[in-house]
Amino acid sequence: MRLPLHSLSLISRSLSDRLSAIPGRRGVCGAAMRLVQFCRQGDEGGVRVGVDRGEGQGVVDLKAFDPSMPMTMRELLEMGAKGMQCAQRALEVSPAQCVVPFAEVRLLSPVLAPEKVVCVGMNYRDHCLEQNAPIPKEPIIFSKFPSAITGPFDDITLPDESQEVDWEVELAFVIGRKGKHIKEEDAMSYVAGFTVANDVSARDWQMKRNGNQWLLGKTFDSFCPLGPALVTTSAVTDPHNLGIRCLVNGVAVQNSNTDQLIFKTEQVVAWVSQFVTLSPGDVFLTGTPPGVGVFRNPPVFLKKGDVVECQIDQVGVIRNNVV
Amino acid sequence: MRLPLHSLSLISRSLSDRLSAIPGRRGVCGAAMRLVQFCRQGDEGGVRVGVDRGEGQGVVDLKAFDPSMPMTMRELLEMGAKGMQCAQRALEVSPAQCVVPFAEVRLLSPVLAPEKVVCVGMNYRDHCLEQNAPIPKEPIIFSKFPSAITGPFDDITLPDESQEVDWEVELAFVIGRKGKHIKEEDAMSYVAGFTVANDVSARDWQMKRNGNQWLLGKTFDSFCPLGPALVTTSAVTDPHNLGIRCLVNGVAVQNSNTDQLIFKTEQVVAWVSQFVTLSPGDVFLTGTPPGVGVFRNPPVFLKKGDVVECQIDQVGVIRNNVV
Repeated sequence: MRLPLHSLSLISRSLSDRLSAIPGRRGVCGAAMRLVQFCRQGDEGGVRVGVDRGEGQGVVDLKAFDPSMPMTMRELLEMGAKGMQCAQRALEVSPAQCVVPFAEVRLLSPVLAPEKVVCVGMNYRDHCLEQNAPIPKEPIIFSKFPSAITGPFDDITLPDESQEVDWEVELAFVIGRKGKHIKEEDAMSYVAGFTVANDVSARDWQMKRNGNQWLLGKTFDSFCPLGPALVTTSAVTDPHNLGIRCLVNGVAVQNSNTDQLIFKTEQVVAWVSQFVTLSPGDVFLTGTPPGVGVFRNPPVFLKKGDVVECQIDQVGVIRNNVV
Repeated sequence: MRLPLHSLSLISRSLSDRLSAIPGRRGVCGAAMRLVQFCRQGDEGGVRVGVDRGEGQGVVDLKAFDPSMPMTMRELLEMGAKGMQCAQRALEVSPAQCVVPFAEVRLLSPVLAPEKVVCVGMNYRDHCLEQNAPIPKEPIIFSKFPSAITGPFDDITLPDESQEVDWEVELAFVIGRKGKHIKEEDAMSYVAGFTVANDVSARDWQMKRNGNQWLLGKTFDSFCPLGPALVTTSAVTDPHNLGIRCLVNGVAVQNSNTDQLIFKTEQVVAWVSQFVTLSPGDVFLTGTPPGVGVFRNPPVFLKKGDVVECQIDQVGVIRNNVV
């Protein structure tokens, strides 16, 4: 595994304070933080929650800072404000004995074992144009099983069962508190933060088999790289105006902006919460911009040895080797 | 809530021993047991795992019998043989102080918060004939979110968002150990046992909206009543030869036999494990026989005040009020 490049530093406190003051913009957590799950190199079993100090200054181990804190992000989110305040304090104080240098950190997906991985299909205007499809009037919702989630720098395993595995960079968000029938104007207060996802897709299974139900093509093990951090809503100036890119072997194959999203975070939260109770840790993938392999002429698919990098401005970069 | 009728007694030890001796028939657990999750009346928060003693003789509280045992079925299954052996011992010994009378028991779904709820569509020959659909050559796999699960005698809540909520009695099974690329001949050794499900379905959302992805119509809160027990594989003579019925307000609307299943338990386990790693607690719904409301002429849908009862011989009965 290669260590992540930490090119994105924390948003300054003053900016985050200004953002939090805008009604409807404030998420579950008012502080600008990059929350991570990690294990120490050599301790592969032990999941820890931490706060990225930014600029390569390591990660504050939350449980080392306060032994009453939980071991997983989902449990931290379930604690609500108390957990977020502790994380903020840990970042501010950063006692030397609680800071783990990046050389000793293996980043994991910022959320593991969520109750739901909710995905939105056909949600970029330019992606609809690419395939001559009409702009959907309602969000199209499908899902992956949580078992598909893998770390931000872990491998994507090509299954023998598919010959058409494709990339899809997506802005993801994570639910921070329980809710049902959430109104659009309240929706952002249910969102803990944002992260980067690759909605890896076996097009043969998605489009040609399984009775047109997309699930199987979307949910092979390792088909949901996620990370590198859960970036709290206050640390993102405007989630719907961010450059979003996918690079395969260093070549940009997707290059768009989240301003092309048809249904934005608030609308997706409101829509899905009509059907199901949302819970802390639920992961949402909001859809992909144009440039996927299946709509190229001729189509291009991932092969062993490829490196796929997904980038979203302010949120981060994930990079996965295809094996 | 009405208390369950316990019309089905435990299979005798001698029969279960004979069944377990048949190669490929033995599941995760060699013993014939009806495992339940419950809370004591008045202690609604506290999930407990128990073993149904049969014939109305109450439930052995597993944690009361052995404090090292976990509080949830999923954790019990994750323990493997040790957990099952303890449950078997608890049933045999049944110390009076560990037995909770049925009057004090509120049965919950035998599994809560599984990683996956995997569903098979169009999996009964007679259900395909009913809708003039061809017999599928491969299983059609879709899913519900775990948040849809509700208890065997809990209410089904009609959502304002649907006018076409339908019933579907289904044989469900629960995975007992982790596996990937499982062969059909080994599949039953990954199955902990069977239970009864109602795959409640909002036909408007399943069939006419959401880009033909079935997920939303299948996953409203309370759309997966499950129970009353996880009946271990050894307690079922032949899971593919069981009478299966659904009654609405006492009238039989579905009445078939699991011998009509196109893809049986072993084939479904093998098929799905090509795509995803199966984990203890994963719930599979195997499909429904004919008689659903949407294919009646005129169509019939559930309304407030209805009582839906799903029955599978040897496995049990669930009964849910529609509210």
